[in-house]
Amino acid sequence: MSTVSASESPVTVVGLGLMGHALAAAFVAKGHPTTVWNRSAGKADDLVAAGATLADSVQAAVEASPLVVVCVSDYDAVHALLDPVGPALAGRTLVNLTTASSSQARDTAEWAAKLDATYLDGAILALPQGIGTDEATLLYAGPKAAFEEHQATLAVLGEAATVYLDEDHGLSALYDMAVLTIMWGVLNSFLHAAALLGTANVKATTFAGMAATAINVTADYVAAYAPQIDAGEYPATDATVNVHVGGMQHLLEESKALGVNAELPRFFLELAGRAVAGGHAEDSYAALIKQFRAPSA
Amino acid sequence: MSTVSASESPVTVVGLGLMGHALAAAFVAKGHPTTVWNRSAGKADDLVAAGATLADSVQAAVEASPLVVVCVSDYDAVHALLDPVGPALAGRTLVNLTTASSSQARDTAEWAAKLDATYLDGAILALPQGIGTDEATLLYAGPKAAFEEHQATLAVLGEAATVYLDEDHGLSALYDMAVLTIMWGVLNSFLHAAALLGTANVKATTFAGMAATAINVTADYVAAYAPQIDAGEYPATDATVNVHVGGMQHLLEESKALGVNAELPRFFLELAGRAVAGGHAEDSYAALIKQFRAPSA
Repeated sequence: MSTVSASESPVTVVGLGLMGHALAAAFVAKGHPTTVWNRSAGKADDLVAAGATLADSVQAAVEASPLVVVCVSDYDAVHALLDPVGPALAGRTLVNLTTASSSQARDTAEWAAKLDATYLDGAILALPQGIGTDEATLLYAGPKAAFEEHQATLAVLGEAATVYLDEDHGLSALYDMAVLTIMWGVLNSFLHAAALLGTANVKATTFAGMAATAINVTADYVAAYAPQIDAGEYPATDATVNVHVGGMQHLLEESKALGVNAELPRFFLELAGRAVAGGHAEDSYAALIKQFRAPSA
Repeated sequence: MSTVSASESPVTVVGLGLMGHALAAAFVAKGHPTTVWNRSAGKADDLVAAGATLADSVQAAVEASPLVVVCVSDYDAVHALLDPVGPALAGRTLVNLTTASSSQARDTAEWAAKLDATYLDGAILALPQGIGTDEATLLYAGPKAAFEEHQATLAVLGEAATVYLDEDHGLSALYDMAVLTIMWGVLNSFLHAAALLGTANVKATTFAGMAATAINVTADYVAAYAPQIDAGEYPATDATVNVHVGGMQHLLEESKALGVNAELPRFFLELAGRAVAGGHAEDSYAALIKQFRAPSA
């Protein structure tokens, strides 16, 4: 993705925790003139050895590049660092990769607008060791023109994908949460499945292939249910909620009989039972979107 | 999969509910001499028109074929039908596709052994309309020689896959439950994700592609965690449980702030919190297998 001109494009990284350090290292490795700053300067030693410049203040770091990437512990830390140097951000693009809620991202966009800074909020779908490799996907939200201006530079951080989402600054945080809830949902149900089969001495590695098939088949259901969710109509072209409830009752009974954790099937049944009570017994499973949209008690 | 000799192999189907009827229709369609029986004989009319033979008693149905497939509402119904004709099953293979628990399947295998019948317990991963197509996978457990003898005949029921699992008759029921818990886990977390993004007017169809990617990426984690589960050691080569807990707290806060259902993130956090309390803070997510193996309160 990078071109000669992109790799000459200067970038500043504020915050050299595990993730910030990985971000700076990826820019340095691809030849970008990289300025770094961290509260404890020692964290920059190996980056400086590799060619980075250590700024002696946040102000100097911000002033060194048209593109300023910040990745610290939380949004309070972002503001503690950048509020005092706000005027220096004018005319620059600030890319905030600090984990945030969607409302924090939107508030920070308003703050940046008052400083005449361009603001992109980002989310990192990777661990620090995945940055700069095909293990990392990064999501960005904010002005599309700003994303496109810096896309070649940002692309060095995640070779799996560098995705522009929307002008709404809150969407990088929301997509991050959406991807994570899917991850935990898949992992938990796999672990429940492995626990069930473990009672019959079936190894997790023996089951893993069929588990992957089941996961991938369900990904196809997701594609089929999405238009129903958008349309607000849930015709049961496959199993009805009632049919699912019957299977869930079997799952609950089997989990209890085998002495494995039954919380997951109980949760499944409670949600599906509410959908039945709400008049969706003969609808498709997509009708459960209403249960997930409703605030919980 | 079927050969000329296989398609000449006679088969009996006892029970013509939605699923039993679909099974019989698939055998008839592939040219097997098919004998059927149902409490209300009218359910057989179209099958007879297509070439099936309607037996006038369960006894006659069983005696018509070396392979007897039964698919009724539950195991009580299986025994109500077959106990009175038990001696007729001697020397035949009974394939029970009635939904069951693993202990019911094992008990029925003992019952069949006393009758000198060969017993295969099966599970159907499909809806009735998928039987005989590439939408259907069927799983079988019991004597491998019996499965192999009838494999070509059974294969007409599910063109996606006809899978032999194990000599342990309980495994078809357990694998069925394992696949279903994965399906519900994936669907629920996708619906939670869609609800989160829906607060920012992101359509489910817009998100579906990234959701599928997230689901498939997580399938890769499953493959990586399975050997850790089998080994009982959970080194965190990726994120630690503590890192996951941090993300889950964000997910819970975001779900509450946006007014969508927060039960799923609360469940995630409770399980992961127990793993931390159990000394697994610095282990991989696979360490949560212990929480799923433990009976719930």
